[in-house]
Parts: sequence; C-alpha cells; structure tokens
Amino acid sequence: MALRIISADSHVNPPRDLWTSRAPAQLKDRAPRVESTPQGDVWIVDSEVKGAIGLDAMAGRKYEDFKVAGLSYKDMRPGSYDPKARLEDMDQDGVDAEVLYFGGPITQYPKDPELRRFIVRTYNDWMMELSKAAPGRLIGLGHVPLADLGEAMDELKRIAKLGLRGFHMNPFPDDIGAKPLSDPMYEPLWALIEELGLPVSFHIMGPRGMALSRLRDPTPGVKETFIALANISMTELMASLIFTGILQRHPKLQFVIVESGIGWIPYFLERMDQTFQKHRFWTKSIITEKPSTYWYRQGHATFIEDHTGVAERHRAGLENIMWSTDYPHSDTTWPRSREVLASHFEGVPEDERRLVVSENARRLYNLN
Amino acid sequence: MALRIISADSHVNPPRDLWTSRAPAQLKDRAPRVESTPQGDVWIVDSEVKGAIGLDAMAGRKYEDFKVAGLSYKDMRPGSYDPKARLEDMDQDGVDAEVLYFGGPITQYPKDPELRRFIVRTYNDWMMELSKAAPGRLIGLGHVPLADLGEAMDELKRIAKLGLRGFHMNPFPDDIGAKPLSDPMYEPLWALIEELGLPVSFHIMGPRGMALSRLRDPTPGVKETFIALANISMTELMASLIFTGILQRHPKLQFVIVESGIGWIPYFLERMDQTFQKHRFWTKSIITEKPSTYWYRQGHATFIEDHTGVAERHRAGLENIMWSTDYPHSDTTWPRSREVLASHFEGVPEDERRLVVSENARRLYNLN
Repeated sequence: MALRIISADSHVNPPRDLWTSRAPAQLKDRAPRVESTPQGDVWIVDSEVKGAIGLDAMAGRKYEDFKVAGLSYKDMRPGSYDPKARLEDMDQDGVDAEVLYFGGPITQYPKDPELRRFIVRTYNDWMMELSKAAPGRLIGLGHVPLADLGEAMDELKRIAKLGLRGFHMNPFPDDIGAKPLSDPMYEPLWALIEELGLPVSFHIMGPRGMALSRLRDPTPGVKETFIALANISMTELMASLIFTGILQRHPKLQFVIVESGIGWIPYFLERMDQTFQKHRFWTKSIITEKPSTYWYRQGHATFIEDHTGVAERHRAGLENIMWSTDYPHSDTTWPRSREVLASHFEGVPEDERRLVVSENARRLYNLN
Repeated sequence: MALRIISADSHVNPPRDLWTSRAPAQLKDRAPRVESTPQGDVWIVDSEVKGAIGLDAMAGRKYEDFKVAGLSYKDMRPGSYDPKARLEDMDQDGVDAEVLYFGGPITQYPKDPELRRFIVRTYNDWMMELSKAAPGRLIGLGHVPLADLGEAMDELKRIAKLGLRGFHMNPFPDDIGAKPLSDPMYEPLWALIEELGLPVSFHIMGPRGMALSRLRDPTPGVKETFIALANISMTELMASLIFTGILQRHPKLQFVIVESGIGWIPYFLERMDQTFQKHRFWTKSIITEKPSTYWYRQGHATFIEDHTGVAERHRAGLENIMWSTDYPHSDTTWPRSREVLASHFEGVPEDERRLVVSENARRLYNLN
C-alpha cells in the first residue's frame, strides 16, 4: 500500500460571500463580509473589522513578499476556498489529504448569540460540504465557540451529526472573557466530547497574553518575538489539561495541540513529571499517574518544520506527533513539502516516518 | 587537575536581621524584617508582607513535607544564610563552588527610592561579604533594580567596584510597572554592562503574566500548572534580547537565563531561526545574523535536572549550558547532587561534562 501523505494542520480562508449569501434577512447586514479598502481586504462582522488578508494567505509567495495585511482575495491562491483548486495545489505538493482548520473571522465571534450561532453553523455546514467535495482528501474540522456552555454543547452534537471528523475550540477562552478551561464548569463538555469520540483540537492563537496588535508594534524585534513565541504557549494548555484531571477523568478523550511544534515536548514532559514528583503532596494533586502518562495516552501535536522534534520523536511520542503543511498560512511548506519531508526524515526508519506523516492522523480521524 | 563541581544557580535567604541591623535611624521601621506569625515567618517591608518562608527553604526535606509557606527561620537549613553552615552543606553534597542568587524580599522592592536604595545596597554589600568569607567557593551576585534607569546604572557601577562577579536583573520589568527590556530606553544600561564586562543574569520569576497567587488557587491543577510553566517563560526574554538587536549592538555582552532548563533550547533556536528566515523582510528585522548565532556567542542557561537537555547538549550549545543545585529551593538536588550528576552524565564524554558542570561557569565568572 502506497504511503498517503496527510497534512494534519492546513487551513481555509472561507469564500468571501459564505455568510452574506446564506444569511437570513434579519442578519443580512451583520453577517461577516469582505470589504475592499485602500488597505486591502478586511473582514467586517457586525460593523467591526475582524481581520485583514495577509499572513493567512502566503502560500507560494517568496519570503521577500510576505505581508502582515494589505492583500485582497484576488492575491490569494484560490485553493484557500475552492476545493477543486485546493486539490490541484495538493497534487502539485505531493500531499494526499489535509485536515482543515479555520480561517476568516470564525474564531472571533460576536457577543450576540443569534449572529454567533449563524456564523458558526454556516461555517460548520460549509466544512462538511468541503469534506464531501473530496472524501478522504479534504478532512474539514468543525469549530465550537466557548462563549456559552450550552451553545457549545449543542453545536458539538450538531457537528457529530453532520459527520465532521473532529473540531476545534479556543485553547484560552479566558482571553475572550469566558472561564479558563481549568474551570470545573466545563466538565459536562469534556464528558460529551469523550462520549462522541471526536478528537478535540486546540490551535495556536498567538503567544498567551499578547495582543495581536504586537504584529504592528514598531519597536524593533517585537513582531519577531511575537511570532517566535506563538507555538510554545501550548505548554500552558497541555499542563492544564493534565494537572486538572480532565484527561484522567476522561481516559478516552483524545486531544490535539495544533501548530504547537514538537521539539519542546520531551523537555516539558520531563518538567511536568518532576513537578508532579516533587510538589504533588502540598498541592494535593488529584491525578494519580505521572503527567507524561496522560500525554502518551491521549495527546497529539502537529508540527511543520522541526528538525529537533523529529530527532526527539521517541521522547515526544512516536504515535503522538503529526506532520502538517499549514497551507496557505505564512509558515507553510507549500509547494516544497516533498523537499521538507526528505530533509526531516532522512535516516528515520520507514515505519516511524509512516506514523508521523500518515498513520497517526489516519487513526485519530478514523480515515480509510 | 581535579574537577571542581560548580553550581551555577544557588540561592541565599538573607539573615533575618540583615536590614534591621544596618538601617539608618530614619529607615529603621521600614527596613525589611522577619515577623513570626501563626502562619509562619513572613518578610515585612514598609508595613507590607513581601513573601513567606516555604518553597524557598526546602533543602533536605522529603517531598511529602514540602510547604508553600508557613515555615519559620528555625525550620530552614542555616546554610541558607550562614557561610560556614553553607560550606558544610556543600561539602556533604560534593559541590565545590556556588553562584549565589537572591532570597528574601530583594526582588520586590518598594516604590520609595531611599528605602529601595538602602535595601539593594545592603544586600549587595552582604553578597560581597559572603563572597569574601569563602573566596572561590561562594560567588555572590549582585542585584540591580530596574525601577529607575539612573539608579540601576549607579548600582551596577557600585557592584563592579565592590568586586562581585555578576549581577541579576528582573527579566520582565513591565510586570512591576517599568518599561519592558525591549524598550530602547535601556540602551545606556546595555552599553554599561558591556563596558564593565560583567555577565547579566535573569532568573525565572514564575510564569509570565501569572500572579504568584496562583500558588494558593484551590482549583485542582492550577498550582502544578504554574510550577511546570515557570521555566519556559524565559523563551520570551531570549527572543526579545536577540530580535531587538541588543546582543548585536553589544557583542561582548554575556547573559544568563537562570533556572530556565535547557531541554527546550534546541527547539526554540530552530523556531527563532525560521522566524527570521521567513519574516525578516516584512518585519524589517534589524538583526543581520540568524538568531541562534547570538545565542551561541553570548547566551548561557542553567538547569537542575533535565535529561532531555543533556541529551540535546550539542544543539543547546556545549559552552552555553551550566548545571546547578538550586539549593536551598524546592527544586534542589541537595543532598543527592552526586547521584543526579551520575545519572545525567552517564555516557557523556569527560571533556563535555567538565564544561557543563564546571568550566563554563568558571570562564563566565572569571574564577580561578
């Protein structure tokens, strides 16, 4: 059987008319739309600017031509929103299947519940349409907003019914005014996730506690520091899911930290295990196994380019790590994924490479 | 020549009467003092509680007996403040020399400049006295407060004159209301540090952006998450010192990230290099070499127990990493340092071990 190359983290930028074309009359004016401005295209949701076209649409550009914003939909590879164009781009890059994450304004939902529900449902419906456009090649994941617990659980049930293979949640809902995931109030949600058997993904959202506006800070070095730090923030989520006992209480719950990189994982597992060994008495820790046990049993992480991580793959967990292209974002390997894979897996045994670039994602998302 | 084992990060807890016994009349009532309460000993500075005796005084305790607070000076090993007792503890542990960092309320200085200057100068004077009590074995480092730039520069000059071999600064002065170290206002300070030729140390201070009060949060797992995350926050400082061009402008400036651990460094160097490669054009990066170049030339990091880091020592930088005991804090290896070293350096060539446990610190601090 030929090796199928699966990208465990790729993205969409939704069609510019996705929401306006499907909005009911009473939401027509408030639905997300793309507006062309002298500063490029921007997403507008309920009169507020919610993101510009830039780093999310860099596939195929030379680094010299990268832009944080100021581009338009015309500048974007159509594979960002059109399934046929997407498959052509994947073929060119030697990628057989892609797990698809959010784009556009989907993670920045408004306070109004009616508008929010419309945005999220429309997006999740479209992700299913995409998945059906190329079964086994486009693996759309849903998005579950954490503004309201009941709403989150309802949408998660709908996602399972639609047939999506997994879903994404904000790793740090306290950043948007909700309770942090360590709060016991989320217990029914964790139980539902385990019951449905869908893996839950948490994608990086920038460095913890740093506003996205740092990407416009003129102080030399602030922008690069922001980008360099974005991935490692997932240490907080990993520690929190483990030490709160969520993974212990829900041993069948599988989770993914997405675009986290993997080279830091061996260090951090050791650090968490030491923390548990030394501090579990006075902290009255509620977990009973050492932290790394939960990771190896239930955790997954994706990476794009990470030679350190591949060298340390055994400590990170051979069945816990998955390669990805991040198409069409700025960190993408497109269209040089073959070359990137060759460089990362030189000297790695074939069965180990197969797990990381294919089998782990296939098993997790139950793909044929 | 026999191998001298040097701990590159150990701590003091200052004598309880250090400040009260030396305060001028007008500061007598406001000088830091230890008060015994039913909840254990606490440091009081200018009527405010500034820390309790607990995790900073755990050397020799069983993990089952660890306490975050509630202890008294009597419960502490006298090696925390008494040089003779300290040398006996070091002998018992097979440690020849220790680089000494802060303790007590020294990093939580008050707003009043007169009181602050008294606290800092008294502490730095005492660190020099400690150093003279056992030349070549006790290597006291100074502390430079960042509340005021002129004051910081004056104290740094005084530290150099005293003869201390290095000094510590807060890695994140914006946490205490000052400008972040990425701010160009610190340029004269960086120039002075380079001119004086003293290495500047930045010790971990808890996870970035998380209040120390999380160590008292009753939500299960929050305390352990806080502890597990404390070290990795130094990624932000490392990226900031590099991308702001501080290290490029001051190529002789040597810095240390202290108690950071080292196992994450190879991953993070690769991540910073990728950030530079892909994003330097639109960010208008002001550095000219790839980020890892500055690390290998000017950076150092200390670790306590970190098997991943020792396995990855070549990528982290053989001349950039230094072992430590962290005595008498809760992460200390005392009194089992011989055993910890044997386990970490099994199979590591003798010349490489020598760098990490001795030579790198000796070279950095100019020890005989």
